[in-house]
This record gives sequence, structure tokens and C-alpha cells, in this order.
Amino acid sequence: MRFNPMEIERRSMEIIESELAVPLDEEVKPIVKRVVHATADFSFAENLRFAPGAVGTMREMLVAGATIVTDTNMALSGINRAAAKRLNATLRCDMADASVAAEAKARGVTRASVCVERALEEQGNVLFACGNAPTALIRMLELLDGRTPENLAVIGVPVGFVNVVEAKQMLWESGLTCITALGRRGGSSVAAAIVNALMYGIEGVRANGM
Amino acid sequence: MRFNPMEIERRSMEIIESELAVPLDEEVKPIVKRVVHATADFSFAENLRFAPGAVGTMREMLVAGATIVTDTNMALSGINRAAAKRLNATLRCDMADASVAAEAKARGVTRASVCVERALEEQGNVLFACGNAPTALIRMLELLDGRTPENLAVIGVPVGFVNVVEAKQMLWESGLTCITALGRRGGSSVAAAIVNALMYGIEGVRANGM
Repeated sequence: MRFNPMEIERRSMEIIESELAVPLDEEVKPIVKRVVHATADFSFAENLRFAPGAVGTMREMLVAGATIVTDTNMALSGINRAAAKRLNATLRCDMADASVAAEAKARGVTRASVCVERALEEQGNVLFACGNAPTALIRMLELLDGRTPENLAVIGVPVGFVNVVEAKQMLWESGLTCITALGRRGGSSVAAAIVNALMYGIEGVRANGM
Repeated sequence: MRFNPMEIERRSMEIIESELAVPLDEEVKPIVKRVVHATADFSFAENLRFAPGAVGTMREMLVAGATIVTDTNMALSGINRAAAKRLNATLRCDMADASVAAEAKARGVTRASVCVERALEEQGNVLFACGNAPTALIRMLELLDGRTPENLAVIGVPVGFVNVVEAKQMLWESGLTCITALGRRGGSSVAAAIVNALMYGIEGVRANGM
């Protein structure tokens, strides 16, 4: 068995490419492949949805400087820190923040609500990556009330059985710059894989751009 | 849409129960259901494999006091900290530890090797949860060389396309107290879900034991 990490990744991507049953647009292909790499689940080749131009816009936001906000520490942990650092991106998840818990309690709202409000208050570019909590996604759409701020892009891929399909459908129809995975599947690994694939596709972030 | 987290979880588990196509042993069912809950992927009902008595043995180890070692910070982040605290379990992932990186460099071995060696040097109970790196799993089996220490249990569910199927098959045939997911699928979310399900099934760890 071979153990060189980059060689294993290269070989994995070759296998994925050879088994992909759906023809994919060149712009989205590296993102789909990285999600399949993270899950071994080819159904994402059919379920992932990209708003027109979303990949390019998200990369432009990352190049210009962005805060990547996640809904769980798990998604945050899956994001390549070296790549984020090369882009001077700020990585943030407020869910475990004590001030968020205190504010949520005082106002009688969920922590996810407070986190989403804080993300929307950011003045710079925000990439909101949601792999777990459909409630966070729904709350964000409620707060936006139809607005589609130019400094906001959403990777909305929560996983599960209640509110999840609906939340992702709402995001998909929102007009926001977004990437989603229609249906039940998704997760923190998927959210992190999408963020990583976006970063790796930017010149200079990763030697082989895979 | 309903937003009470425990209500959503209860409803999710009902949906999963109603859609499970494979009859499952009562001992393993809560673990399979929690993995499906984390992935929305029912193929785990067929792919998850439990060594005889593994669930009971792992719970006994957790009750007696155990160190839960993960191969990624992502898996570590997915483990319920409150539940682990109630069991006085130590949570550990050495992959990002500076001393591990230094030792790996000095000896010309991988960081995963050093982490696995450190896990095997533990005197107390060790639950090794591997959701990402088949190399860590393979290295552990090499170091054990057929031994099956009583203080060691392995949750081996790496995901991917190279070495992964083989590593899990090796684990499954090793005679170790183990849980694995045959085939390509797995991941940090799966590893964390299994650890959480093991903890939740212990009386007093979670009110509803779900």
C-alpha cells in the first residue's frame, strides 16, 4: 500500500473522475470531486447545486479577503488552515462562544440565531458554511427577508431528516450566491470540503490546485 | 417548522426507524441509527460491522474510565463534550501537537505513526476513533502485530478510495474489539456519531438515552 498523502489524493481523484456518471461543468467539477473524496458518496454529483457564477464569485470574495463563518466547530476543524492563512481568511464559529450563549439566553433565542445575526453584521465578505443546523440557515433567510447582500455567500449543506430538505430548497430559491446539496445529505465534512475546494482552485493556494 | 432540538432529534430517529430496511440487533441499532442520523445515508445499516460484544465492551471501558483518541480534530469536535465529561473520559487528538510533528520529523515517520504509538502506550482504557486516515489504522495493526490488548478498542471508519477498504478489512479480521464500516464510506462524522451513540447508551449520560 502507498502512503504518500499527495499521491494518495491524486490517485483518489483519478478513481473519482473515472467513476463519475454525470457530466459536470468544468467550473464545478473540482468541488463535486472533493465532496465525493470526503464522503465516497457519488450521489453528491447529482445533488450539489451551484447558483449561476457562485464558484467564481466565492473565489473572488476569498481573494479579496473574507471571513469564513461555520455553524459548527466540526466544519471549522475540517477547513484547511494553511490554505485559509494564505488567503488571509478569518475562520470563525461562534456557536461555542460564551457571549453568544449569554446573549441567546438573555433574549430567549437560539444560539444559532445570535451567530447568524453576528455573521450578517459583518462589513466585509462573509462565506457562511452551514453543514449541520438547518435552523441557522432558515434564520438567516428570515433575517435577510429577500435581500441578497453582495458581501454574503452561503454554502448550505445541512444533513438530516427534519427541516433540512426544506431549508436547502429555500436557500436554492433565495437568489443568494450559494452552493447547496438538495435532499437530506450533507454535513460538516461536506461543508468543509466545499470551502477547501474553493480555496484550492485559487492560484497559489495549493501547488497542484487539486 | 419545528425547532426544538430534542423534538427534532426524536422525530428524526422515528423517520430513520421507519425507513430502516435491514433488521438490526437491538444492541447495535442505536449506533446504526445515530450514524444514519449524522449522514442521512442508510447504506451504513448494511456496512457497519460490530465485533462480537464490541458495543458492551466499549461501554464498559467508557464507564470504567477511558481516553478517547481520534485521528483528526474534526472527529474530536464532533464528540459530545458534556457526555464525555459525565463519563470522566479524556478526549485527545495529537495530530496537531507540536511535539508529535517534531518527533515525526526527527525519526522520519508520519505524524499518524507517532500518534498511534502514543495511543498504544496508554496504560488505561483507550478507545481509538479513526474516521479519516487509513494509514493510522494500518500502522496500529502493524504495531500490534496480532496482539489484541484488553485495554484497546477501535472504531475504524476511515473514508476514501485508496487503502481504505483494505485497512477496514484488516481491522475487521484482527480480533480486536472493534466497530468498522466495510467499504469506502465513513468519515469523521461517522466516527464521532459512533462514539456519541456508545456514550448515550450508558445510563445517566443522556436523559432520553437516544
